[in-house]
Amino acid sequence: MRETLSDHIMLSNIPYQDLTLGQTVSIERVVTQREIILFAETSGDLNPIHLDSEYAANTVFGQPIAHGMLCGAFISTAIAMHLPGQGSVYRSQSMKFTQPVFVNDRLTITLTVTEKKDKLKLVKLACSVSNQNQKVVAKGEASVIASEKTLMMAAAKLPEITIK
Amino acid sequence: MRETLSDHIMLSNIPYQDLTLGQTVSIERVVTQREIILFAETSGDLNPIHLDSEYAANTVFGQPIAHGMLCGAFISTAIAMHLPGQGSVYRSQSMKFTQPVFVNDRLTITLTVTEKKDKLKLVKLACSVSNQNQKVVAKGEASVIASEKTLMMAAAKLPEITIK
Repeated sequence: MRETLSDHIMLSNIPYQDLTLGQTVSIERVVTQREIILFAETSGDLNPIHLDSEYAANTVFGQPIAHGMLCGAFISTAIAMHLPGQGSVYRSQSMKFTQPVFVNDRLTITLTVTEKKDKLKLVKLACSVSNQNQKVVAKGEASVIASEKTLMMAAAKLPEITIK
Repeated sequence: MRETLSDHIMLSNIPYQDLTLGQTVSIERVVTQREIILFAETSGDLNPIHLDSEYAANTVFGQPIAHGMLCGAFISTAIAMHLPGQGSVYRSQSMKFTQPVFVNDRLTITLTVTEKKDKLKLVKLACSVSNQNQKVVAKGEASVIASEKTLMMAAAKLPEITIK
């Protein structure tokens, strides 16, 4: 087990009634070669534009780019782990992919509460992903049902994953 | 290198001018524990609902469910690898998550061309993901710029990835 990753990670949430319009959270993720390889394996998208430096050098991007949907994965994690966090039920997500993401880009994923629908306990979130140059690489909107309970539990522990 | 996965995979595309309204493609993916672990590692979403059978047994689902955005990853792969395939530029994606996905579910990802915008070479695709019981688990719309060239190249080879 990878003690360092999750041993001390506790998952919590912001219950529906405590969410306020304009409330925001930002998380950071650096996109390394590891993320791109793992996303390729998981998704099955083996396009050389993401994985082959030599091939990518001869494209308009000049270097490998991350899979666009990796930003979707990061947004979904920010929702599930932070806002509203634990107990959220993901209903929908829209995304526009506005700029390429390169290896070693430092991404900031920002969620902002834009709407609450009390009857359904549904929250709408503006979602934005920007890089270290403050360029927005992806943006969209999520809708999520938030729990009304205050939750707290340990994150799952992942087995060790190695890339040869 | 994992010879079996990509040694004989060639990537091709359907050039913009050959795409027709109603044209469709379906791919199948079985969601194993491996996909869920790799998606958790890549995204950082360590919610026990996806990874801990004992925890999940006491939830409304009764068993672990896949991360919703895993369907997004599969949709993006169907676009990048099949319709339009190689050379596509992903512009946007919307998704509704309508049913839970469980371990060992066999998913069918179906894309259908619904609109073409000649000036931009932009294609709109209806996206649907259904399980082995013909229940739609996710659906949405993608917009993609398709290449006008006929492309053919070898898929990237991934290094071996092992889970302890």
